[in-house]
Parts: sequence; structure tokens; C-alpha cells
Amino acid sequence: MPQPKFSGVIPPVVTPDNPDHTLDVRSYGRLIDRMVGSGVNGLFLLGSTGEVAFSNDAHREDIVREGIRIVAGRVPVLVGCIDTETDRVIEHARRAQALGADAVVATAPFYALGGLDEIEEHFRILHEEIDLPILAYDIPACVHSKIPWKLALRLGQDGVLAGVKDSSGDDVNFRYLVQENEKAGHPLSLLTGHEIVVDGAYLSGADGSVPGLANVIPAPYVRQYEAYRAGDWAHVKELQDQINEVSHIFDVTAGVQGYAGGVGAFKCALNLMGVFDHDTMPRPVRALEGANREAIRKVLVDNGVLGA
Amino acid sequence: MPQPKFSGVIPPVVTPDNPDHTLDVRSYGRLIDRMVGSGVNGLFLLGSTGEVAFSNDAHREDIVREGIRIVAGRVPVLVGCIDTETDRVIEHARRAQALGADAVVATAPFYALGGLDEIEEHFRILHEEIDLPILAYDIPACVHSKIPWKLALRLGQDGVLAGVKDSSGDDVNFRYLVQENEKAGHPLSLLTGHEIVVDGAYLSGADGSVPGLANVIPAPYVRQYEAYRAGDWAHVKELQDQINEVSHIFDVTAGVQGYAGGVGAFKCALNLMGVFDHDTMPRPVRALEGANREAIRKVLVDNGVLGA
Amino acid sequence: MPQPKFSGVIPPVVTPDNPDHTLDVRSYGRLIDRMVGSGVNGLFLLGSTGEVAFSNDAHREDIVREGIRIVAGRVPVLVGCIDTETDRVIEHARRAQALGADAVVATAPFYALGGLDEIEEHFRILHEEIDLPILAYDIPACVHSKIPWKLALRLGQDGVLAGVKDSSGDDVNFRYLVQENEKAGHPLSLLTGHEIVVDGAYLSGADGSVPGLANVIPAPYVRQYEAYRAGDWAHVKELQDQINEVSHIFDVTAGVQGYAGGVGAFKCALNLMGVFDHDTMPRPVRALEGANREAIRKVLVDNGVLGA
Amino acid sequence: MPQPKFSGVIPPVVTPDNPDHTLDVRSYGRLIDRMVGSGVNGLFLLGSTGEVAFSNDAHREDIVREGIRIVAGRVPVLVGCIDTETDRVIEHARRAQALGADAVVATAPFYALGGLDEIEEHFRILHEEIDLPILAYDIPACVHSKIPWKLALRLGQDGVLAGVKDSSGDDVNFRYLVQENEKAGHPLSLLTGHEIVVDGAYLSGADGSVPGLANVIPAPYVRQYEAYRAGDWAHVKELQDQINEVSHIFDVTAGVQGYAGGVGAFKCALNLMGVFDHDTMPRPVRALEGANREAIRKVLVDNGVLGA
Repeated sequence: MPQPKFSGVIPPVVTPDNPDHTLDVRSYGRLIDRMVGSGVNGLFLLGSTGEVAFSNDAHREDIVREGIRIVAGRVPVLVGCIDTETDRVIEHARRAQALGADAVVATAPFYALGGLDEIEEHFRILHEEIDLPILAYDIPACVHSKIPWKLALRLGQDGVLAGVKDSSGDDVNFRYLVQENEKAGHPLSLLTGHEIVVDGAYLSGADGSVPGLANVIPAPYVRQYEAYRAGDWAHVKELQDQINEVSHIFDVTAGVQGYAGGVGAFKCALNLMGVFDHDTMPRPVRALEGANREAIRKVLVDNGVLGA
Repeated sequence: MPQPKFSGVIPPVVTPDNPDHTLDVRSYGRLIDRMVGSGVNGLFLLGSTGEVAFSNDAHREDIVREGIRIVAGRVPVLVGCIDTETDRVIEHARRAQALGADAVVATAPFYALGGLDEIEEHFRILHEEIDLPILAYDIPACVHSKIPWKLALRLGQDGVLAGVKDSSGDDVNFRYLVQENEKAGHPLSLLTGHEIVVDGAYLSGADGSVPGLANVIPAPYVRQYEAYRAGDWAHVKELQDQINEVSHIFDVTAGVQGYAGGVGAFKCALNLMGVFDHDTMPRPVRALEGANREAIRKVLVDNGVLGA
Repeated sequence: MPQPKFSGVIPPVVTPDNPDHTLDVRSYGRLIDRMVGSGVNGLFLLGSTGEVAFSNDAHREDIVREGIRIVAGRVPVLVGCIDTETDRVIEHARRAQALGADAVVATAPFYALGGLDEIEEHFRILHEEIDLPILAYDIPACVHSKIPWKLALRLGQDGVLAGVKDSSGDDVNFRYLVQENEKAGHPLSLLTGHEIVVDGAYLSGADGSVPGLANVIPAPYVRQYEAYRAGDWAHVKELQDQINEVSHIFDVTAGVQGYAGGVGAFKCALNLMGVFDHDTMPRPVRALEGANREAIRKVLVDNGVLGA
Repeated sequence: MPQPKFSGVIPPVVTPDNPDHTLDVRSYGRLIDRMVGSGVNGLFLLGSTGEVAFSNDAHREDIVREGIRIVAGRVPVLVGCIDTETDRVIEHARRAQALGADAVVATAPFYALGGLDEIEEHFRILHEEIDLPILAYDIPACVHSKIPWKLALRLGQDGVLAGVKDSSGDDVNFRYLVQENEKAGHPLSLLTGHEIVVDGAYLSGADGSVPGLANVIPAPYVRQYEAYRAGDWAHVKELQDQINEVSHIFDVTAGVQGYAGGVGAFKCALNLMGVFDHDTMPRPVRALEGANREAIRKVLVDNGVLGA
């Protein structure tokens, strides 16, 4: 099994904010160095986890410029160019390219939905206008349309897409995509964004994973990918079990939902662990506090991520 | 019944494009002059109909600057400041203010959903940071959350919102909003975006309407509002019936969906009528062609909008 | 305007239960006599409001037999024959016919969804197998598909459907249906199930309404229909405003949802008013209690429905 | 790993119909004998696949009685007792018990949705009233609510549920359920209904699978379960790949959707293979014909299921 260009563990990087909502560059450096030092195979800046939707263009530029500077070529850097429609995405992609991105990640159009033909046209235009590999970001929970495997594969075979980052929750579609991609000569790098079921995605034959939780615990994901490459499935599964125990930082909180409970849990954990100086969330989201913060601390302590 | 600041017929202006996707200023002038000449009470630039989601920032600025120049103070101009989250919306709103907008129209956050508390916080932050009246744009089909009447009313009573543009399709919620707004001293201007049932919204007590179809046939909407003000309900209903016959430009086409079928029908009609020099749609949407174009022509001819 | 067979106010009858979940016949008699005495134009048994989904076949039969006995021919009786697919609906319809129903009301298939062609085939088979007028019950919130106006109208013109009871919340589709039905010679009786916006539906030209709240306050709905027939739109609207004040029994409760908050509020109110001896809800739903019951009492007292 | 009572491959049995829509007992016998002969570990009658929603009570009884007679104790028989609400489900369950079922399978309530508390109450009442093990059937696509793993596990620990048949498509939730069930002492039998990703479910630690496609190709599923028990993951995956090739009978058809394309493909295949004498579908669904039938034949031939 030769490894495609974008493979292995490629975490979506959480963006640390100062209390005044500027980029907290020192925390950012600690976070990135820790993940690269753990052996991750790439980094994904400005994903949903990286606050792309909350960041204005100047802030997006800070995140990408500083991220690429810190990474310093140690691993490939993918940059999310997330916006409502084609022309807006193109602008973000050109900026990402100018800042040194290795690939761009783009969703289907959102806000105004137009069906599969428009999704296909969207990616074809992006490919014509952008000089970087493009990965499709399949995330129906955010964009409210789904990229079917037949469309993704056709765009891969036509050289439009270099890969797919699957955050769709549709494991049936993903399994078909992996299987048919293999039969077609593996034109696409196929990465799962579902950090809780990476083991199953690997058994399907996925090329890698984009686990947000790797911001908190990168090492188990790296070891899991190594076990996958070695065909040690019992260990792949065992590591997933261990990872999932830590993932309860998502569900021990109360009274929060969506981004506040997901990325909020990451920031809370990273702050408790001393990786982040702050747990500031982007407006209008609030940081986790009080009992929620203590519940997350307990999960981290119980699983040895944090000293008692 | 005193009229609130934003009332009457306030069409969401369709944006005409040149074949190279720049703003077609001459067609824009014809469209706006035709609507203002018909007696509309305001104009809404950069609504969903106005291609806000498809336009990059430079194009948005063209649309607003030229629109305000053409209107030349004849009617109030509302500007859509539509983007994923708070900080991005603020930037659009500041540009709109600098260009002379009379009010901004903003949706609930989208892409990352966070519940009602975050929607409320979002609008409160906008109000703190923007020196213009703010209308909430309630459009769940695009943003995938709904602004309940209790939240809208509270934000009105607190001076955060000046009004609501309701495109939710939830007539029950809208009727409660109108009724409770009246009891609370009418803090909000309440406008329906549902061009097909403006008669019912007026009977509820709505302050006005934002009908996309008024780009094509502004006069019946203006007369309908006058009939409403005069309490001539039979005429309000009769005009709606006439309007709805023309609205079949939305459903006589085949093989298109979403924006292509809605705004595509407007552009096709305006092009057939000579108001627009082109029917260019924004990327990745395609213009209506062939049998679809002829079907729209027939609707316009049958209803006397276009000569035979 | 000649009145079609099914027109005016046709409340969906709430089913009163004894504490042992048998039919409370005495309360049922009081409820029906009160509505018929107020001048309603028909009654709809075994609607969603009438606990059709919760009742086994024996209980359904009790509800229909006793209801028809109590009505004693004073008004037409429509019976809901609600089940997942065609053959199951047919069985309910044959029982309803044997018990003396004047019409049956059936939804689109649910549980297994198959698209518009199957919905059409479903109603055509029902028409072939059932010797009673059939009204389509358009209720996407329960059956998760929507009957478009073009399909409903075609089935009306073909003699398959006698009418539509619209509980879809899609006022645009309903307005088209009313307008096109009129142009087609009025084959369908068109009834709105949206008790809060009956005024708008009447302005559209609806034939009548099916308001659950008429179980609690039948008289205002009857007067509203009379005002509609007389063209007194200001009074139609004013009565809707009064009705809507009472409708806050739906939203003054806390911690309940769905059926518990809707029909639960009806049963609580009718019990407080002495019409129902009990407020028993069908399993697994719980009756409203404590503060929720007091909040409903307050709404009723404040609006003169209940003495202080 | 001791095997819980309900484990291994438990196909949901397709129901063969005569052209007059009565049960085709001869085909039924061939189908069941073929699966039992292949070594399946149980059978699930009257699942969604088994036409439960389409069958009236008499037809349901035929399906269960004849199915249990044919099985003749060779494997456990689970019976779907699918209906809208609690009291209706109880009636089906009592009939199933009288006919000799080994367990009943019930969904959350549907048609009227009431939230998680009502779902919990529903299953608790079923447990009180039914003297058979109960498996929860988690199928949001049909019932429009999802059973979260925390609720399922609590009901397992309380002895209310004996297992879960997961057709939710939510692999994250299922993986948590399996992992937490194991930590809790394995109170629940956990079966995946997703025939395309059984390999991933087994890697998670699932107890078995309920693959509709096993009606067509039972042997590979049986061998896959044996490979799972032996820890031969490469073979588990390889067999899934082979299975998935045959599964393209679902997506080579055109112009069909839902049940017509899923169970319709099974019936078409079984008819082509000579297992079923007919491919009759329940009303109002139509059987696959013409090019769709030929496309399915080609998939079967290409994969050696059918001779050329």
C-alpha cells in the first residue's frame, strides 16, 4: 500500500485566542509543536474546528501565516477556504496559496443550495482557478448538502479533487467511496473526520484521519495509524477505545451545544493542560465554566491526560 | 395606525450581472428607477435575492455603492450583511454604513449552529458594534435555525432590533410576532418576505413586505399596500391573486432548483422585458435556457407583463 | 360562493379518557354537545388531536361509534383513518364506513417513504376501495412528506379526493391550492388546520377550518366563519386576535413538548372548565401538572374562558 | 468473549407476496431454508424489510405464523412489532408471543413525537406488559427520533431492553454504545443493521448484524461473522468488500427511491435467482421492471450470484 500525498493523522488545528480575540501566537506554537513532535503527518488550519466561520479575513490570514511559520515545513499544511459560494472561496484560496499552503480544503456551496450539478460545477471552477490540490470537505451538518461518493470519485478521476475530508457521518457512503476509489486506481486521498470511529474507517481502507481530539491527545492517534499500517487491528481498536474515553469531554458538560460543547471542550482541556494560556471562544460563543470545566478536568485526570 | 420607519413595499433588489460577472450598472439603474417610480417604499440590497452569498467583498461593495447612488435618497436603503458569524457580519455592516446604508439586515449565525442563546448574543453584539438600525433576517432555509417570536420581540423591546424580515415560512410564528409586537407598543417593523401570501400577512397586521417578485411587477404590490392601508381587503386579496398568476414563473420550469429557479426566473423575466441586458447568473449557477425561458415568456405574456 | 359539502368550522375532537384509559363517554358527550350547540359545521374524529396514533383498533372503534351516536346526525362526521400504508388504511376506512362516517381523512403513507408517485398511487387505491369521500390530511410534521398543490388538485379533478385538510404549515402551497382549485371549478373542499392563522386562510378563500382550539372555545371560530361569509374582514381578524390570546395555553407551559404540550393543554383546559372529568393522556404521554396546570388556568381566567 | 443470546447474523426476512398480495408460502420456505442452511444465527420477521408497515394485522399474523412454522426451532425468531404508539405495539407483541416468537423488536413511538422521556416511558411500559425479551429498533429514517446510547444503556441495565438493532446510520453513537455496554457488563445484545459496514461494527465489538442483503447472499455474512470470531480482520474486511459489490443492486436502478429501490432490489434479485416465484411489492409500491431488472441481473451475474 503506497501512501498518497495526504495521509496519516492530519489534525484540524484549534485556534487559540487571546482574551481580546486576537490570535494567541505563543499558545498556537505550543499546540502545533506538540502535535508535530508527536508525529502527526500534516495539519489542517482553518477547519470548522479552527474557527474558520467565526474569523474575519484579517484573522484568517493571521491564523494561516503564523501556522505555516510555526510548522516551518515539517509537515504539509492544508488550509480551509470555507465560504458560501464559489467566488468567495476562490479569494480565500488565493490568499492561502500566497501564504504557502500545500492544499486547500473547500466545502460544497452553502446558504443557497442548488443541487448536485452546482456542487460539481463549484469544484470544477475552483480547480480551474486555484493552483493547489483541492480536498472536498464533506460536512452536511454545516453546509446542508452531502457529496455522494459517485460525484467525489468522478471529480477525483478528472483530476479536480485530490481528496475528501469526510465529516458527513455517513459511514456507508464513505465505505463505498474508499472501495471504489481503490478500484479506480486511488485518485483520491480519503480522510475521515470522525475521531470516534477512526478504527472502522481504517478497516475500510481510509488513507488517514482528521481528528479534532488529536489537539488534546495526538500520540494515541499517531500510534493508531502506525498499528493500522502494520495490520495490527486489535491494537487499532484498543487505541480507539482509549481515545474514546478521553472523548467524553464532549458529553460530560451540561447546558451547552454545538461549537460551545465541541471546540469549547478542546479549549478548556488545552487550557487546563497548560498548552493554551486562555480558553477564549470566538464571539458569540461562550467558554465553558464552572461545573462543566471541572467535569472536563475529571475526564482528563481519570484518563491520565492531566496529573491529579 | 402610524407607519413605522421601515414599512410598505421594500423589494429585495435583484443584482444584474454583465457576462463577465461584473455589476451591470445600466440594467441596475433601470431596475431601481422602475421600482422607485412605481412607488415602492424602500429597497433592500444584497438580500438572498441580491446574490449576497455569491458575491465577494469587492462585488458586494459595488452593489451597495452603485445602488445607493442610483436611489439617491428617494427611498430608504437596507443592506444585507450576511455572513457566517458575528465578526464577519460586523465588517460588512461597517462597510455598508460607510457607503450610506439606512439600515442593515443580518441573519442568525450559520455554518456553526449554537442555539438560541448564541443567536441572541449575536444580535446584541451587532447592536453594540453597529451604528445603524438592525433588522433580523429570519430565513431558516438558508441558515438552518429559526428566530422565535419571543426572542425577536425581546430584542425589539431592548432596542437591539428595529425590525424583522420574515422569510421563515412559519406563518403561525409571524402572526404571534405581529400581535405581540402591537401589544408591546410596536417596537419592531415587521416585514414579510413571502410574496405569495402578502395578503394574509397584511391581515395579520404586518408593516410591509419584501417581495422578490416586485422586481418584475412592482406596481401591483404598491397598489396592494395602498389597499391594505385603506382597509379594502377584497382588493388586497384580488391583487394577490393577480400577482400569484405571474409567480408561476417559479414553477413552469423543469430541471432546475433553488436559486437557479427562483432568482433565475427573475433574471430571465427582466431580460425578456428589456430591463436587464443579460440574464447572467453568479457562479456556479446557470441561467435558464430554451424551453424554460419560453415557459417564462408565456407566463409573462399571458398575464400582460410582456407584449405578445 | 356556494358552500362545498365539507366547509365551515370542523373541529378535530379531543378524545377524553377515563383514568383506566377507556373512553370517557360522559365527557365526550359534553364536549361534542357543546361544540355542536355552538354551531360548528362538522366534527373530525380520530384526528391527530383525537389520539388516533395512540389508540388500538378497539379504542378507535369506541371513539367512532360513540362519537357518531352522540352527534346523531346533527353535523357531518369525518373520521381519521391514519396508518402507515395503504392496506392498513383501507381496513380502518371500512370500519369507519360500517360505523356511519360521512367521510374519511387519510394521510400520505408514512414509516416507509417512497416519493410523490407512491403518494398518488396510495390515494388512488384508497378511492377504488372505499365508498366514502376521502380528504387528504397533509401533515408533514407527522408523516414526513408533503402533498404539493399540483398533486392534490389533480386528485381532486379526477374525483379521487373530496378535499384537503392542510396541517402542513406551508401557507404558500395552501394559497396556490385554493387559488388553482377555484380556477378548476372548486373540486376540493379546502380546510386549514392552523388554528392561529385561520384569518389568513379565509382571506385566501379557504372553505373552512379544523381548529383544535375549538374544543375549548368553539364560539369564536363559529362567529369568525360567519364574519368571513359576510365579508367582514376586520371582524375576522379581531376574532383571530382574541382566539390567539387563548392559544397561549400552548406556550405558557415548561418542560413539555409535542403532544403533551398541545393536546395536553386542551385536556387540562377542558378538565379545568368541567367539560372533561379527567385530563388523562394516552400512554406514554403524561398529563400536565402543577405549575403548568396553573399557567393554563391563568390564561383561561385572563381571557374570560374560566371564571376567576 | 461469551456470546449473548441474540448474536451473529440475524437477517431481516424479506416477505414474498403472491400476485394477489397474499403470502407466498412456498417462496417463503425456500428463502428461510436457504438462510438457515447457510448458518445464520437467527431470523428477524416483520422488520422494515419484511413489509411490516405495509401489512395489515391478518397479513402480519400469516407472516409470523408461517415463518415460525418453517423455522421450526432451528434458530431464534425475532418479530417486529412496529406501530405508532405504545398500546398498539403491545397488541402486536402479544400476538407475536402467542405465535411463538423468541423476542420482539420495537421502535420508538412515531407519528406523534414527544422527546426522550416519552421514548423511555414507552419501552418501560412495553417491558411491563410483554413477557418476551425486547430489542429496541433504532431507525430514525422511519420514526424520526434517535435513541441515544445513554438511554439505550440505561434501559439495558434496568432489564427493560435485551438489545438494540441499530439502523440509525450513526456509527459514532453505536461505537459508544458498544464500548459502554461492554464496560457495564454487556447487558445488551448489539446488532448493526448496516449491511455495508458490518466490518466496522464488528471491529467496534458488535454482537452481530441484521443485514437485509443476507436474504440474497447469506453465506458471505456467515463467513464474515466466523472470521470476526476468529479475529481474522483482513478476511472480515475482504468479505465486506465482496458483499458490497453485490450491494450495488441498490444503486444501479434509476427512477426509484426508498422501499421500491431497496426491498424492490431484494425481491427482483430473489425472483431472478429462483428463490421467489414473484417479485410482487406491497401496495402502493411498484416492482422493478425493464432496464432496472436487467441492471440488477448484471450485478448478480458479474458477482457470481447468478449464472450467466
